Amino acid sequence: MRSPVDIELIHTIAQLRERLHPSRSAPIALVPTMGALHTGHGTLITKAATETACVVVSIFVNPTQFNDPSDYQRYPRTLSTDSEFCQRHGAHIIFAPSAEEMYPEPPQTFVEVGAVSEHLCGKFRPGHFRGVATVVLKLFQIVQPDRAYFGEKDAQQLAVIQRMVRDLNVPVEIVPAPTVRESDGLAMSSRNQHLTPEQRSIAPLLYQALQHALSTIEKGERSAASLQQQALATLAVPGIRVEYLEIVDAASMQPIETIQTDARIAIAAWVGSTRLIDNVFVPACH
Amino acid sequence: MRSPVDIELIHTIAQLRERLHPSRSAPIALVPTMGALHTGHGTLITKAATETACVVVSIFVNPTQFNDPSDYQRYPRTLSTDSEFCQRHGAHIIFAPSAEEMYPEPPQTFVEVGAVSEHLCGKFRPGHFRGVATVVLKLFQIVQPDRAYFGEKDAQQLAVIQRMVRDLNVPVEIVPAPTVRESDGLAMSSRNQHLTPEQRSIAPLLYQALQHALSTIEKGERSAASLQQQALATLAVPGIRVEYLEIVDAASMQPIETIQTDARIAIAAWVGSTRLIDNVFVPACH
Repeated sequence: MRSPVDIELIHTIAQLRERLHPSRSAPIALVPTMGALHTGHGTLITKAATETACVVVSIFVNPTQFNDPSDYQRYPRTLSTDSEFCQRHGAHIIFAPSAEEMYPEPPQTFVEVGAVSEHLCGKFRPGHFRGVATVVLKLFQIVQPDRAYFGEKDAQQLAVIQRMVRDLNVPVEIVPAPTVRESDGLAMSSRNQHLTPEQRSIAPLLYQALQHALSTIEKGERSAASLQQQALATLAVPGIRVEYLEIVDAASMQPIETIQTDARIAIAAWVGSTRLIDNVFVPACH
Repeated sequence: MRSPVDIELIHTIAQLRERLHPSRSAPIALVPTMGALHTGHGTLITKAATETACVVVSIFVNPTQFNDPSDYQRYPRTLSTDSEFCQRHGAHIIFAPSAEEMYPEPPQTFVEVGAVSEHLCGKFRPGHFRGVATVVLKLFQIVQPDRAYFGEKDAQQLAVIQRMVRDLNVPVEIVPAPTVRESDGLAMSSRNQHLTPEQRSIAPLLYQALQHALSTIEKGERSAASLQQQALATLAVPGIRVEYLEIVDAASMQPIETIQTDARIAIAAWVGSTRLIDNVFVPACH
């Protein structure tokens, strides 16, 4: 016979989690990367190491998020340098699976995140955020971290992951960290190493265009169309082809006409055969 | 300075999990239900209670998996009876969230499982398995069980969940349990209570048609088309409208022409305004 203790009836997610999974004494952090690590990643790893007991860095060049096969082929792979880099920045474990380990059979299951993934890169890289959301969810299921660290350089990726985690009740706290830049303003990216010296010298124009837009906002401009027009004018130089330059709501990633809420100005541009992205945050109180 | 202990480099999922998450001493089971519990659910709960230390039964009538709003409206809701039922069968916790608790904002994120969800019910209930896969993944993230129990009556649902768990590396073991039937063969279902006495009297014909097909297979028949034709003939009675009767591969849920591998014969039929489903397993060795 069952003891007469009453069954527990629980109606909220928070209460159920507290009942079943009391906080871990030694929290686990995940820093998901595609390798070719630079100071931007280093900042994420160091931050994670100061905030948690165990830092896992995943290094996996995920085929399903590349819409362009040649971009996937030439993506830099530098595991032994990356391993030393991780250790130097305080990581404890590197998880470096093969593509076969992550996709032992052609996958049938994908995570689709709606509106937040439709504009900006979502528009120009079909299937990209589906691949990103799916592999990040896989990594979350594999590592089961308490926290995961993402750079703000990939602002739309961050928004997509935040939305996915909220919608699917994934028990992982998403920790964003600011974009790290070279001394001339160029956002750090593993793809920067593809640039020729000449391309490298004009690449900082992307950030300068964003800064220009920010200072125009400081002076009172609120119209997205006119900010966009002015910023694009500064980028009309040979060797740069802008894919998009958009002003979007910072949370929903939907284009806005007038700056009222927290916003982001986001850009993607081709410098030679290398696609670079960057963005800046525009707080509502501007 | 960091101690000179080498960073751990791990390449496989199994090794990483073992390193980070040693087995739980008191495993947690989840039995996801929509309530209106019957002996079929009771069997799942009892099985879970004998195999794990803590059995959570979730009771949630999930709006996103109903393609027909009137089916959602009239789905039976019987929480106080269900609570006693769960306790009697050995459950420890009932998780009964409101729709607002599960969907505090209109969801943007959905889990899409491909080919396995395309035929049978997937064809006739657009969006159904997307809703099922998404809510089950949410429940897995909320409860974080070691095992989850599903009835084979919903064979395609089981196949969809198994595929999702494999593709997304969800750390939950899926435990199937056989369909429980009334003494006249009718598969137990919360929807059976919608049947009038007259409808109830003809409802067992569904299982009889499946049994008839099985015995024809025993006699050597291997052609799906002729099995289907014969089974349908037994269902040509007033009051029954067959939606599908298909023979599919048991794992992929793809229609087959000839029975060679493990298969399932699956049926959906309307008895009056109530839609019933059933299926039988056909082992390859027949």
